[in-house]
Amino acid sequence: MKKYVYMFQEGNSKMKDLLGGKGANLAEMTRIGLPVPQGFTISTQACNLFYEKGEKLTEEIKEEIYTYLSQLEQETGKTFGSKENPLLVSVRSGAAISMPGMMDTILNLGLNDDTVLALAEKTQNERFAYDSYRRFIQMFSDVVLSIPKYKFDHILERVKEENNFMEDTQLTAEHLKEIVKEYKKIVKSEVRRAFPQEPREQLLMAVEAVFASWNNPRAIAYRRYNEIPHEIGTAVNVQSMVFGNMGNDCGTGVAFTRNPSTGEKKLFGEFLLNAQGEDVVAGIRTPKTISQLQQLMPEVYDQFIKTTEILEKHYRDMQDIEFTIEESKLFILQTRSGKRTAEAAMRVAVELVEEGLISKEEAILRIDAKQLDQLLHPTFEPRALEAAQMLAQGLPASPGAARGKIYFTAEKIIEAANNGEKTILVRQETSPEDIEGMYAAQGILTARGGMTSHAAVVARGMGKCCVAGCETIKVNEQKREFVIEGRVFTEGDFISLDGSTGKVYRGDIATIEPTLSGSFGELMQWADEIRSLLVRTNADTPADARTAVKFGAQGIGLCRTEHMFFDESRILSVRKMIFAKTTEQREKALEELLPVQREDFEGIYEAMGERPVTIRLLDPPLHEFLPHSGKEMQDLANNLEISLEEVKEIAESLKEFNPMLGHRGCRLAITYPEITIMQTKAIIQAAIAVSKKNNITIKPEIMVPLIGTVKELKYLKDVIHETAREIIKEAEVDLDYLVGTMIEVPRATLTADEIAQEADFFSFGTNDLTQMTFGFSRDDAGKFLKEYVEKDILEQDPFQSIDQEGVGKLVEMAVELGRKVKPDLKIGICGEHGGDPESIKFFHKTGLSYVSCSPYRVPIARLSAAQAQILNKR
Amino acid sequence: MKKYVYMFQEGNSKMKDLLGGKGANLAEMTRIGLPVPQGFTISTQACNLFYEKGEKLTEEIKEEIYTYLSQLEQETGKTFGSKENPLLVSVRSGAAISMPGMMDTILNLGLNDDTVLALAEKTQNERFAYDSYRRFIQMFSDVVLSIPKYKFDHILERVKEENNFMEDTQLTAEHLKEIVKEYKKIVKSEVRRAFPQEPREQLLMAVEAVFASWNNPRAIAYRRYNEIPHEIGTAVNVQSMVFGNMGNDCGTGVAFTRNPSTGEKKLFGEFLLNAQGEDVVAGIRTPKTISQLQQLMPEVYDQFIKTTEILEKHYRDMQDIEFTIEESKLFILQTRSGKRTAEAAMRVAVELVEEGLISKEEAILRIDAKQLDQLLHPTFEPRALEAAQMLAQGLPASPGAARGKIYFTAEKIIEAANNGEKTILVRQETSPEDIEGMYAAQGILTARGGMTSHAAVVARGMGKCCVAGCETIKVNEQKREFVIEGRVFTEGDFISLDGSTGKVYRGDIATIEPTLSGSFGELMQWADEIRSLLVRTNADTPADARTAVKFGAQGIGLCRTEHMFFDESRILSVRKMIFAKTTEQREKALEELLPVQREDFEGIYEAMGERPVTIRLLDPPLHEFLPHSGKEMQDLANNLEISLEEVKEIAESLKEFNPMLGHRGCRLAITYPEITIMQTKAIIQAAIAVSKKNNITIKPEIMVPLIGTVKELKYLKDVIHETAREIIKEAEVDLDYLVGTMIEVPRATLTADEIAQEADFFSFGTNDLTQMTFGFSRDDAGKFLKEYVEKDILEQDPFQSIDQEGVGKLVEMAVELGRKVKPDLKIGICGEHGGDPESIKFFHKTGLSYVSCSPYRVPIARLSAAQAQILNKR
Repeated sequence: MKKYVYMFQEGNSKMKDLLGGKGANLAEMTRIGLPVPQGFTISTQACNLFYEKGEKLTEEIKEEIYTYLSQLEQETGKTFGSKENPLLVSVRSGAAISMPGMMDTILNLGLNDDTVLALAEKTQNERFAYDSYRRFIQMFSDVVLSIPKYKFDHILERVKEENNFMEDTQLTAEHLKEIVKEYKKIVKSEVRRAFPQEPREQLLMAVEAVFASWNNPRAIAYRRYNEIPHEIGTAVNVQSMVFGNMGNDCGTGVAFTRNPSTGEKKLFGEFLLNAQGEDVVAGIRTPKTISQLQQLMPEVYDQFIKTTEILEKHYRDMQDIEFTIEESKLFILQTRSGKRTAEAAMRVAVELVEEGLISKEEAILRIDAKQLDQLLHPTFEPRALEAAQMLAQGLPASPGAARGKIYFTAEKIIEAANNGEKTILVRQETSPEDIEGMYAAQGILTARGGMTSHAAVVARGMGKCCVAGCETIKVNEQKREFVIEGRVFTEGDFISLDGSTGKVYRGDIATIEPTLSGSFGELMQWADEIRSLLVRTNADTPADARTAVKFGAQGIGLCRTEHMFFDESRILSVRKMIFAKTTEQREKALEELLPVQREDFEGIYEAMGERPVTIRLLDPPLHEFLPHSGKEMQDLANNLEISLEEVKEIAESLKEFNPMLGHRGCRLAITYPEITIMQTKAIIQAAIAVSKKNNITIKPEIMVPLIGTVKELKYLKDVIHETAREIIKEAEVDLDYLVGTMIEVPRATLTADEIAQEADFFSFGTNDLTQMTFGFSRDDAGKFLKEYVEKDILEQDPFQSIDQEGVGKLVEMAVELGRKVKPDLKIGICGEHGGDPESIKFFHKTGLSYVSCSPYRVPIARLSAAQAQILNKR
Repeated sequence: MKKYVYMFQEGNSKMKDLLGGKGANLAEMTRIGLPVPQGFTISTQACNLFYEKGEKLTEEIKEEIYTYLSQLEQETGKTFGSKENPLLVSVRSGAAISMPGMMDTILNLGLNDDTVLALAEKTQNERFAYDSYRRFIQMFSDVVLSIPKYKFDHILERVKEENNFMEDTQLTAEHLKEIVKEYKKIVKSEVRRAFPQEPREQLLMAVEAVFASWNNPRAIAYRRYNEIPHEIGTAVNVQSMVFGNMGNDCGTGVAFTRNPSTGEKKLFGEFLLNAQGEDVVAGIRTPKTISQLQQLMPEVYDQFIKTTEILEKHYRDMQDIEFTIEESKLFILQTRSGKRTAEAAMRVAVELVEEGLISKEEAILRIDAKQLDQLLHPTFEPRALEAAQMLAQGLPASPGAARGKIYFTAEKIIEAANNGEKTILVRQETSPEDIEGMYAAQGILTARGGMTSHAAVVARGMGKCCVAGCETIKVNEQKREFVIEGRVFTEGDFISLDGSTGKVYRGDIATIEPTLSGSFGELMQWADEIRSLLVRTNADTPADARTAVKFGAQGIGLCRTEHMFFDESRILSVRKMIFAKTTEQREKALEELLPVQREDFEGIYEAMGERPVTIRLLDPPLHEFLPHSGKEMQDLANNLEISLEEVKEIAESLKEFNPMLGHRGCRLAITYPEITIMQTKAIIQAAIAVSKKNNITIKPEIMVPLIGTVKELKYLKDVIHETAREIIKEAEVDLDYLVGTMIEVPRATLTADEIAQEADFFSFGTNDLTQMTFGFSRDDAGKFLKEYVEKDILEQDPFQSIDQEGVGKLVEMAVELGRKVKPDLKIGICGEHGGDPESIKFFHKTGLSYVSCSPYRVPIARLSAAQAQILNKR
């Protein structure tokens, strides 16, 4: 026969899947001799069986529960329903993964009209007994019978009002007896049956209710949000009650073995005298700090300190402990690893290593890589945030907190920034022309676009706060205003953005700057020693490159050359190139661009030293560079000596239905090889210059975007080689360089063996690969992606974490085909996924050589890469 | 030692790869005893070696050529360079696949200042000898020495002028001697050496020149156009000369054993007395018909007739024969399968089967499926076409010939058509709103868009002539004019279009209507008996459906429901649905659409009877249905009782950056399930109604577009089932239906095993699959695809013939994964590739159940499917 119920002493901490986290910990604490009120756990398998049988407990399980109940009665010397020494129990849920506050709990189960008398008699405290009973009825009715709490609260309030009481504690035993009567009446009228008096019936009903609460909406939502599988189910813990509310030698509290905000090694906690656990959580009374316990009950305090030390050593981690003191006797009700801030997590992990409790590998695994963002960006001052008014919710596109006056154009932002103002750029969506404004602003807010929209990608690269795709705001750029639900915000109004949550607030909320502790540096160094996956950065400017190096980047995996084209001093030359009617005209415009592009690369080589730099040739469709205003068009017409009409005509002819799938990337380069020639010249000439100047060896990596067939690469490689070799020969130097390709078109993954024959390296462009594999435009998908996640059609946004099943299959295929031809082929990834921990683990497993991510994600990538290495070895 | 040269008697007709088509045929004719002037063939392997060695003949091959030359001298009794009996030869190219007129030929090789005297002496015809010599010098100089022909022509003309001659034949031997002298001077001044006098040197130079001509630009272009591999190389045939120009008992001609235009079994050909082959080809003199030979040389005629009969029986196909008569002696210089029209091909194939010469399978393989288009569409009257002036060249988007007055809007077209005018719709690009105009027009011309642009797809569906992506015309729709190279065409001007070639002509060119012969029906029936791949059609209207059935369609593989939405009477309801602010409003608008949509389906079921009909749910992005003009917007605003402002705002919010990858297909259906509910109702209700009315069993196939993950399908399947089952239950009938999916997103192919679990059938949407796998927008790719093919980066437009290496890999993967889960899964393809012969062969091999193509391509598909079956069995 299958076993579904376990006494605490039968289990241990390794049985989390079966007993849930709480059950396994209660068992473990029992096992190591800590004062835990005894009880038993009904396993997660019972929960699954419960759902299989149409949300019913089987007879088999019921019998088993009764058996274990008897054993508990024997151990405690108390009996369910006894009029002398009644057993009371708590019934609590507990899944393998902690879901705090998400499911239901019932205390004081076993009370009825008889046992309440016995409890009063035994404790010589009638008030306590009836207070417990009325709490039980309300809790049971809420959780099991689905009677809303407020119906009971009304009665309590009425009685207090009638007696002019302010506090619950002013109620006497007589008042509480009255209240219990009224409560039972409510139950009868609501569910047309009397409140169940039989403790065993109470127990089975409670167990069923806890199992059923696994699928209540907030639990489902919590699991979805935290990526917890729905199938694991919850266990139920039935534990004999101890009472913190039997008088002033009683109490209840929670404590952390270290400070969960800073990580400082000092007991941190609070407790209430004469109270039950729910009072602490509810925040009705102001609790005392744990140090005050020392004065009030020195012996209990000493015992508690010893216990916490045992627990931390035993679990080898900072613990979050719930305890109750019943008539000066300490009971531990729960222990678990404590939630903590990133800063605390770092410090605790490093100090635990120093204390010899855990290994460096364990320390690395203990850190949630995603949490590192907190450390690298400003956050709101918590009290200021509490008072703030939220206006809207967008996508958390780039983390950090920002506050400032709103402006609607890059020009205005730059002007205001020059006047020393803090600013927020608000746009329908950003375009490459906004770059300067984005640099100057504190944060960026857009009404459209997803997590990989232009605004989001660029902001993350800059480490700048950005809330994108905030569809409830209606931006009117001409009127210089936006509207949220009828409320108008105009130029110069203050707002604040939280790029980590996507929330938009009214007004100017104070922020705190981040500080990087020594623990951070130490942990990162350990990570670097362990990981095999290299970490590069996506950087287009010397400033970005320097930031990334500071954060530990080992090279540049993606330098986008087009961002340089939007500078005001260059855009005219770029447009002349685009509007050229002959190859000669185009070459002339490119000649103007050559020196500035060369300077760009020189700056980047200077910042990176001998670290590898991968430069991608021009990628976006040409129409991104088109003039928009009449003035810009006229300027261009004058400059090119053609009519305004003609300028408009050419601009029109460059428009595309689906620019993402249009004339861009290597397709442009094949149509206009002169662009590739200019860029190759700039790359090679700059490398020669900086190599000479600094007496270092620079080996540029030239990357051709959007290859779909090997012949495209072959064609452009010939152009690049011809250009580069001539320059190198003329300069009479020894310069080596690589020519590789982005793998971002599905067809490239399918024919990667052929492409590998012509490529010195591969770099996955997983943004575009995801777009094309799903057929999702990242700029348009916002409209339905959110709904897809809500309706559980997608588990997560595939632009944030790589879709391992679909897109990942293509990645694996390309790696396999590529390495079949060139076993040592250097393969990286430079899409947004290069900074996502889950994706990094996948890339490590797939055998990639490096990931490349935005500068502010480099530490996350270093840590994730180390974690991947450790996990993969296990 | 490897053998590179073969005497004619050493070869046979099976050695085409080695000896080329001409060489193998000369060998074969020699083998069966026909009168062929003797000679030898230098193999295609020698050609490849020639290119390997940097365009040089190896010493080894030269020696071998000399050896075989000696043998030829022995056999003919003539000697190279002999002053008594000189051997003269022709040197001709001949690849394994015929490339008529694409490479170079040299006649009379072996003549020099000495042998010309011997020839004069031997033939007693000095004029003939010098005429041959001057021809040889000119031809050799052109082909081998690259001296332009016109330089020699000038001299000939000058001499004629000086003597007031009209015809070459008026030139005397003396004149020709003078001309030869002058010709040799030209050679000397052009190439700074004397005209080579040594026949062996002449021969080697000629062989090298023929090999080199394999890679001349027109030969490369021809191979690209005809999809002939560049690597196969050409052979060179060296054959002893016979002379048709030695007097009036001599002549030369070509003949077809059957009529190449109609296929009629009657010798068809022409000849010239006293002429060499080049005179026939050049068209200088008007040739006589072959029947006139009977009067002039009855014995030769009889021998020739017998020879043609032998050849046709031997080769079991209609032959194209070149012959020469030298002093009343017949020589066969070449025979090959004759090129023919589609009509002739049909008739010849069927009659050869009836004559017992070939099997039905062979007859089917003999037809070029692509050629069938000729049979189904009007063509230009050939003489009228000769006189026509070509204006521009676009893409051959939908075959047939059309002529009419140009108009620039659908409204104008309809108005003109109602007045009985023939019209051509000219647009920058068409949109779904142009459908009615496209129906009313004779043909469609667009300036933008590729082979699978809206105009192209819709026109092919209608069987209507269309030239798309004609980028040299500048359309100004507002001015109602288009401009080609400065010349303006305005509303009402006549143009003519050839949709089979993409050519645009000035004026009104007469057309001929097609007729379908009995042979066509017979051949199609044989094809149907043989093929296992079913052929369905893409049809959106009852009219299209009826056309397709007439052409043999076995069902509908794709019925696009959105085309129905553009009808003037419906578009307002569609817009109300899109602009609805609540689900109620949307449902109300959908209620208006339900009866009309139901009617659409009833019409289609009526046309198809019990044949299966696959209906695809709404696919395009909603913005395609948006109002454009101010009036349309105002109408909508009035109707919805909202402000014009609001209409504009909603329209703006529906715009997408990349609509192809946006909110469309199943994504729309998931956001607005009420649309799916309405469409399901219409599909099922119509099926019930027509089943009852006609007492037949209709089993609709509902197809969900753009599935990327199984959960999308599952979600919509639930919606469809719920709706359909309720209707079926209410109607108290027995109606079966299927729910399947398009496989068109790369991710769907990668997870086809999961999707198969929920799908009753798959249908590949290879248009979208090609777009996403290549990352090509079919509407924008025109800009670079042409260049890609020209630069040999792509062998062909992947939207026309499926890319087997990339896209095909995904198709194979999906079939394998799908059938692993459901071995009998019905899998079709309904993209444009369903009508392309090469693609159909691929789909047959991949194991698909059916292909679906536009009605006018159904016969092509039936034939191709049969060919695939036969080829696969072999």
